[in-house]
Amino acid sequence: MNFNPTPRILMGPGPSDAHPRVLQAMARPLIGHLDPEFVQIMDDVKGMVQQCFMTQNHLTFVVSAPGSAGMETCLVNLLEPGDECIIGINGVFGRRMANIANRCGATVHKVEVEWGKIIEPSMIREALNACSNPKLVALVHAETSTGVRQPLKEISQIVHDANSLFMVDAVTSFCGVPLKVDEWGIDAIYTGTQKCLSAPPGLSPVSFSERAVKVLENRNSEVQSWFLDLNLVRNYWSGAKRAYHHTAPVSSVFALHQALSIVLEEGLESRWERHHSVHNYLKQQLEQLGFSYLVDEEYRLPNLNAVFLPEGVDEAKVRSQLLHEFNIEVGGGLGAFAGKIWRIGIMGESCTRNHVNMLAGALGEIL
Amino acid sequence: MNFNPTPRILMGPGPSDAHPRVLQAMARPLIGHLDPEFVQIMDDVKGMVQQCFMTQNHLTFVVSAPGSAGMETCLVNLLEPGDECIIGINGVFGRRMANIANRCGATVHKVEVEWGKIIEPSMIREALNACSNPKLVALVHAETSTGVRQPLKEISQIVHDANSLFMVDAVTSFCGVPLKVDEWGIDAIYTGTQKCLSAPPGLSPVSFSERAVKVLENRNSEVQSWFLDLNLVRNYWSGAKRAYHHTAPVSSVFALHQALSIVLEEGLESRWERHHSVHNYLKQQLEQLGFSYLVDEEYRLPNLNAVFLPEGVDEAKVRSQLLHEFNIEVGGGLGAFAGKIWRIGIMGESCTRNHVNMLAGALGEIL
Repeated sequence: MNFNPTPRILMGPGPSDAHPRVLQAMARPLIGHLDPEFVQIMDDVKGMVQQCFMTQNHLTFVVSAPGSAGMETCLVNLLEPGDECIIGINGVFGRRMANIANRCGATVHKVEVEWGKIIEPSMIREALNACSNPKLVALVHAETSTGVRQPLKEISQIVHDANSLFMVDAVTSFCGVPLKVDEWGIDAIYTGTQKCLSAPPGLSPVSFSERAVKVLENRNSEVQSWFLDLNLVRNYWSGAKRAYHHTAPVSSVFALHQALSIVLEEGLESRWERHHSVHNYLKQQLEQLGFSYLVDEEYRLPNLNAVFLPEGVDEAKVRSQLLHEFNIEVGGGLGAFAGKIWRIGIMGESCTRNHVNMLAGALGEIL
Repeated sequence: MNFNPTPRILMGPGPSDAHPRVLQAMARPLIGHLDPEFVQIMDDVKGMVQQCFMTQNHLTFVVSAPGSAGMETCLVNLLEPGDECIIGINGVFGRRMANIANRCGATVHKVEVEWGKIIEPSMIREALNACSNPKLVALVHAETSTGVRQPLKEISQIVHDANSLFMVDAVTSFCGVPLKVDEWGIDAIYTGTQKCLSAPPGLSPVSFSERAVKVLENRNSEVQSWFLDLNLVRNYWSGAKRAYHHTAPVSSVFALHQALSIVLEEGLESRWERHHSVHNYLKQQLEQLGFSYLVDEEYRLPNLNAVFLPEGVDEAKVRSQLLHEFNIEVGGGLGAFAGKIWRIGIMGESCTRNHVNMLAGALGEIL
């Protein structure tokens, strides 16, 4: 059947453009998922994921499914029926965590704020005080539906003072903005590959602290998912014997290996700085065109720009023109913001001044 | 980090060699997962999966994770706590189904036979009679751990006479041996991409009959997995509105599109015939070398050859020599057969006389 997808400029909420090295890695002939060379590649990937998460966590690996499955991996392994947990909700992905935690049989205490705002530390403290035995507190570091960057360090301290686990969604922040798993005391974290890492979507790097591993090892019930059961998966990724669990997505892991290598060649700090400076460049141009930001400057993600369009502009029409006349993809709003905002991503390989100039030029033509 | 995997000849239980068109599809620049062109590609893939399953089932799509997640998708959606099900076990994958069904809170009646044998229709009839309200019967069509091809048609009738759903694991049979979902009355089926389809591992095509959809729509409890919940995923793959669920693994779907196209260009019947005739070619050479088959001729899979080695041969040593001296991968035994058999795959692009001759030539040198 005919297959000829049009090349696009990807400036939505992900996937972002992939580096040619990453694309070429996927075109490599396959090797077996238990081949000693593949096991070495898995080890390399694990080491590089640890570096990018800034963690020493031994239980660090990659879930063979997209970011949402990483979210589910964290929750189904750490929660059991009857457990209490606290979930911060200020967008689509906090809501999703609450939905999954509920399916784990946990009692979910929601800390909800207006979309586009952060969860304040005091709110988490209050929620913890109102709980009898809170096992886990989960927050979204970079809410992809609103472009909010949630401060984590102060809340982490509050969570640990209450003897709870601190879980974080880092899908859109990983390798784009500062994220320090060990320094910030994060116990469980998951991310995706198709944002600031600029690998194809489909995998979810995750990491668990020793505290989280202890909780996992002391479960009373079996993990409800076989595919995501860390007791099984960890032996495939880290066991001395490499017990077969499932067939790893070999080509996607090849791509991930190259994407992580590219991040570390650039250096995390330089990469964060690049996202920051290209964000400023984009912001200036967007504001000149009449766009305005949803999120207060202090809490804005540099890489995911949630913006209101200039007065009177038909967002769906212009977004379609951008795609069809200029091959540029930007994202529309999700959930409460559908039809109301755009989400402009400058992530990984899509985070260059050239990308910004292409977008600004096209918008100048259309508007 | 250094990335230079050695090209291998893949003749194990999967992945198999991929066609250059498939590899090149993955090297295409990414497009957005909600791009109209990607939606068209998803529609094409759905249509081609229907053709390859030989089904009209509307609820046919591709799970964004490997075959084991396809298995879990079928079970978590069709079973609820307290349901009774019957699982045929004659190898690793039947055992895995029972494990997952158990995690769904179902009462699992196991029909177990010696590994390497088929499940007889009479055994399923007896198990159904012994059950008060059997909701589902699950069998493995092609047991990858033993090379057994399980006859399905007669059992399907027995299952439906008892008003149960018939679920089938077709990971290793899909596009390699006859498999007729509608004609055989299969209600839920899953497969993988890395066997006779010769795409990279990581995705799981699935299909559900109208009967299965009714069961799904009449559940009393929520599906325990959010990621695998068909009520959500179906709106992403088939809904008029294409509700965002997760980010599809774009590049892997590109590869799948090309792999399915190649299958349909060859034609299913021709492909089955090719696997059959190359199997005979392989069998002759293996028997000359002193190998003998585990499974009775009548129930042998042509594409996955489970064989005992010639007397006195150190299987692990020879397997390692094949890999390191000839870059040929064959599979070792799993579970009860670890260290005892080899599993030689001739699947998809790895199913050629040239592959057989490379293997036979190398074995002739080593033995």
